[in-house]
Amino acid sequence: MGKEGRPIITLTTDFGEGHYAGALKGAILDVCPDASIVDITHNVASHDILEGAFNLLCCYSYFPAGTVHLAVVDPGVGSDRRGLVVATDKYSFVGPDNGLFSFIYNRETAHRVFSIEKETYLRQPVAPTFHGRDVFAPVAAWLVRGTEPEAFGPEIKDFVKTATLQVEKREPDRLEGEVAYVDKFGNIITSITPENVSELLDRNGSPRILVNGRQIARHHRFYAEAPPEELFSLVGSSGYYEISVAGQRAADILGVKRGHKIQLEMD
Amino acid sequence: MGKEGRPIITLTTDFGEGHYAGALKGAILDVCPDASIVDITHNVASHDILEGAFNLLCCYSYFPAGTVHLAVVDPGVGSDRRGLVVATDKYSFVGPDNGLFSFIYNRETAHRVFSIEKETYLRQPVAPTFHGRDVFAPVAAWLVRGTEPEAFGPEIKDFVKTATLQVEKREPDRLEGEVAYVDKFGNIITSITPENVSELLDRNGSPRILVNGRQIARHHRFYAEAPPEELFSLVGSSGYYEISVAGQRAADILGVKRGHKIQLEMD
Amino acid sequence: MGKEGRPIITLTTDFGEGHYAGALKGAILDVCPDASIVDITHNVASHDILEGAFNLLCCYSYFPAGTVHLAVVDPGVGSDRRGLVVATDKYSFVGPDNGLFSFIYNRETAHRVFSIEKETYLRQPVAPTFHGRDVFAPVAAWLVRGTEPEAFGPEIKDFVKTATLQVEKREPDRLEGEVAYVDKFGNIITSITPENVSELLDRNGSPRILVNGRQIARHHRFYAEAPPEELFSLVGSSGYYEISVAGQRAADILGVKRGHKIQLEMD
Repeated sequence: MGKEGRPIITLTTDFGEGHYAGALKGAILDVCPDASIVDITHNVASHDILEGAFNLLCCYSYFPAGTVHLAVVDPGVGSDRRGLVVATDKYSFVGPDNGLFSFIYNRETAHRVFSIEKETYLRQPVAPTFHGRDVFAPVAAWLVRGTEPEAFGPEIKDFVKTATLQVEKREPDRLEGEVAYVDKFGNIITSITPENVSELLDRNGSPRILVNGRQIARHHRFYAEAPPEELFSLVGSSGYYEISVAGQRAADILGVKRGHKIQLEMD
Repeated sequence: MGKEGRPIITLTTDFGEGHYAGALKGAILDVCPDASIVDITHNVASHDILEGAFNLLCCYSYFPAGTVHLAVVDPGVGSDRRGLVVATDKYSFVGPDNGLFSFIYNRETAHRVFSIEKETYLRQPVAPTFHGRDVFAPVAAWLVRGTEPEAFGPEIKDFVKTATLQVEKREPDRLEGEVAYVDKFGNIITSITPENVSELLDRNGSPRILVNGRQIARHHRFYAEAPPEELFSLVGSSGYYEISVAGQRAADILGVKRGHKIQLEMD
Repeated sequence: MGKEGRPIITLTTDFGEGHYAGALKGAILDVCPDASIVDITHNVASHDILEGAFNLLCCYSYFPAGTVHLAVVDPGVGSDRRGLVVATDKYSFVGPDNGLFSFIYNRETAHRVFSIEKETYLRQPVAPTFHGRDVFAPVAAWLVRGTEPEAFGPEIKDFVKTATLQVEKREPDRLEGEVAYVDKFGNIITSITPENVSELLDRNGSPRILVNGRQIARHHRFYAEAPPEELFSLVGSSGYYEISVAGQRAADILGVKRGHKIQLEMD
């Protein structure tokens, strides 16, 4: 891996800006000074595993083959939860075994998962409160240097898969989903995809999303197609239906946060 | 371009931290894995083209020749607004044709502007909601790899120049300007420069800025010259008059935001 | 320095995101286009020298030998406060002479301090309001290119050491310390270390921290060991006692900010 260009490691954490992210980067560079470290975000809501997982899901596949994705949202640090290396055809993922990679297991069918157990690859002594720095950072750095995933410990099958995004068909023409993410613009990204909709009876109809009993009746192809103040749906850049409104924050207008239930029905 | 060192691409967006910026970076590295990606900011106020343009204006010229500046504040994404490559003597700029580069057109007289039309340089399929990832990122990456600006599409002359910063001479000794930017310290950066002042009748007098009817009577060379709690003006590091106060946020004290009118008169 | 890998420069500032940090990065790359620039944080509270110093303290030592740590929290910019290069066995530090490196002087006994006076290494003209861009950035870049610390100016001994973190033994079994930092999770990092505790009479007892008259009676090894809603202490990843609570912000519950006095006594 990483043989074609400079070694790339991306970072997705809930650390906030500051010395935790700094120490993580230092620990990577101490093992692999040539690494190109790419911040995805350090602003995942504290301990919000699903938000971290969703951020990673929406961008991991745009990186070149060989990229190592390091993700740390880790409320269980120091306990007996395991640390993982997940290897797929193109990428490796490093982080805690708490469901943070559940989307990856769904999306990348050819994945192998290894439990990090070989202490020689870790920064000693390992602080029980900061495996990001002492376990995951050096492991990610050894991976981009070419160490095989097998080297860090045994392959396991009983890794943690948590519930990811809920989508259920409630009636032949009605789906129930949830709010997956609210972005910086206040756009509401739902858990429902065009593939879900294609399984509905009247799949060529026009989708109508219902939030808090309110109907989002208009559907557009892109944001600027909508007139001001009109709540509308579109299929967003990550492949999910989303709800937006020009120049305002749809999430604030509709009063929803992640996890809020929504419905989609066909006209 | 970029032949003397590692290829550098800077990023100025309103995406916030998270997977949008992450996907942009991935799409760059997928084309040019050696690119050195430099975050300027992802915290431009949502859809605020002028704020994005001002951030770029204040720092683009400090980068080495060959740097590609990628900027995405793009409320019209997916519509028929064009995508641009702007080539100047030292730099290239990539982003939407919505006025985001208006300052560059003013400052860099030798600029050529190309409409991005050649699909082979784009990530396919192009999502109508995220040209940052699918159009501008790969184009910026091909540019730092050495592709000529002409390769992406035809040169155009009717690109969008929006009003940038307002400065008008109201009387022989009086300028009207506006608040261009409020920085993280609460300093108020105005649109007025020493060059504007040098055109006033009494150009060797002492400048006095008026905000909301309040006079900023003292002028200093640097921040620490001022006593605590004194509102004062100085010429800031980007070449504009600004209003500051030691240890407090001048913008909060004076209750101004970007666009607020201010006057400067000579004593 | 920096001979074994790519040259690394870290950044710790109070600039916020935006063009100030952008200009700093540009000015570095203009001198050393190969530099790997690593953001530690740009969100230090405005002019808060101690917060900047503490962030640097908690992560500088994880970087590889040869790293240059550039730190700018600089309320006195433009005055006669000096600019410094601090050289230790493994690292260099560049920034204003205002106490920002006080922790480094304590921790790295073999330090030499040089006053930046040689104008040939600076960006001309030097703006009296932005030495980060015009003085410290180019000096940091010349340092990672291999320029010796001596080259920038004379060695000095009267550099500024400010009070750093307070810890005092009040009684044979009682320490008074302070809140050193509140992290993004709301954890309260104190100024007290296990070394301080080892000097107490009953050093094998159980530590109990007192904040605002409230006792933090439980002590754990890692966060997940504590039941929900229990305030507890632990020794954090930077080596200081800290106060935490699962799923909530301890700093908000206890109503403390940096500098707040706390006590630790032994049972």
